[in-house]
Amino acid sequence: MIGKQRWAIADGYIPEESTGPEPELTSHDTVCILNAGDEEATVELEVFFTDREPVGPYEETVPANRTKHIRFNGLEDPEEIPKGTPFACVIESDVPVVCQQTRLDSRQAENALLSTIAHAGDS
Amino acid sequence: MIGKQRWAIADGYIPEESTGPEPELTSHDTVCILNAGDEEATVELEVFFTDREPVGPYEETVPANRTKHIRFNGLEDPEEIPKGTPFACVIESDVPVVCQQTRLDSRQAENALLSTIAHAGDS
Amino acid sequence: MIGKQRWAIADGYIPEESTGPEPELTSHDTVCILNAGDEEATVELEVFFTDREPVGPYEETVPANRTKHIRFNGLEDPEEIPKGTPFACVIESDVPVVCQQTRLDSRQAENALLSTIAHAGDS
Amino acid sequence: MIGKQRWAIADGYIPEESTGPEPELTSHDTVCILNAGDEEATVELEVFFTDREPVGPYEETVPANRTKHIRFNGLEDPEEIPKGTPFACVIESDVPVVCQQTRLDSRQAENALLSTIAHAGDS
Repeated sequence: MIGKQRWAIADGYIPEESTGPEPELTSHDTVCILNAGDEEATVELEVFFTDREPVGPYEETVPANRTKHIRFNGLEDPEEIPKGTPFACVIESDVPVVCQQTRLDSRQAENALLSTIAHAGDS
Repeated sequence: MIGKQRWAIADGYIPEESTGPEPELTSHDTVCILNAGDEEATVELEVFFTDREPVGPYEETVPANRTKHIRFNGLEDPEEIPKGTPFACVIESDVPVVCQQTRLDSRQAENALLSTIAHAGDS
Repeated sequence: MIGKQRWAIADGYIPEESTGPEPELTSHDTVCILNAGDEEATVELEVFFTDREPVGPYEETVPANRTKHIRFNGLEDPEEIPKGTPFACVIESDVPVVCQQTRLDSRQAENALLSTIAHAGDS
Repeated sequence: MIGKQRWAIADGYIPEESTGPEPELTSHDTVCILNAGDEEATVELEVFFTDREPVGPYEETVPANRTKHIRFNGLEDPEEIPKGTPFACVIESDVPVVCQQTRLDSRQAENALLSTIAHAGDS
């Protein structure tokens, strides 16, 4: 078993433009969740903004012994996350998981990447 | 509740030149702060240099349940942070927050990105 | 002595295409392991997918006081990891080690890089 | 006070070639050290390789309330670190410091960046 039940990302951002073939090189911001345990994870994402109330929860399930790479651009319920807008995200799971953020920015002809393991809460 | 009250970044740097449309693709170094709690955060940034005394505090507030993405290039009080100069930063908050650093370097025609969750202090 | 015996990476991905001279600029995803102790480390990698059972263990040894940078693209036993497919990885070692992930993406003419220290388990 | 006395980086690598004006855009791998305390830090770097004994210590001092961004390419004593060669590094300090690794890879016309806070030891 490895992981924590609460994670946070402070720098969320979906670049507005993209260059290159879709969907691989479409600009995206992603949270990748690993559930290395034997029970399905029910995961809730809450998204925070600069100047309005948080939106969520976005509900996801990650089956036992699986990983799920979730593009913030693909979230729709309760609402889409706007592009070109700073956000942040808290991830809560009912079982331990591991969270990592990765962004691909293809606004220019050649893409740029960033990634970091998210911040794990104590509990 | 998630976060810590003290954070540090060791590699701060604002590239001197930029390519592409402003302000999105202006070279910048950023500290992104998430306040996922129910109380406003008063945050103080202290900036460290190689060869002179630290500068600060730079004071910021992050409202309850909000995120704030702060460009080091935009800080003015008590003084601007020079470009092309190595620095570091300690972030202190009166309530728990989460801090992440991201730099966009557009000195060349195609941008480059780096990001990392900051180092969280114990207390 | 520094390190932990269990580590995880949530965002594994080997880009399908590459540009530039091989093998340095071949797109790759890597786990870099440091064994700074005085005993050889026996390391097992387990690889998780989105829609099928985990594969592994991939067994590696890292001698005392050595580092080993392992490309996921190079793993063959028990089976190759497919390109263009999201995966995740848990790393277990019989002695403390330090793990860091780095990806080089050369699908486009200019390469992009990401890196993060992996998530360390508690035990 | 923030920081730890022992840190590690598992993926060190100095790219062999560079494009663009020196020294800013020379390919480099860097460890950035922040000493946010009131006592000078004496820091020792030990560098680990794949197939030979570790080299070190490389000794550095970081004055109180200062940061030092050290390029691995610039280290000379006890010996230079070869380019194009995987390495790793353990950093030990006599007072708490914060360590972050950043690499600039300018082998191609447009640079790429990676960065991560190093792994902090328990003690």
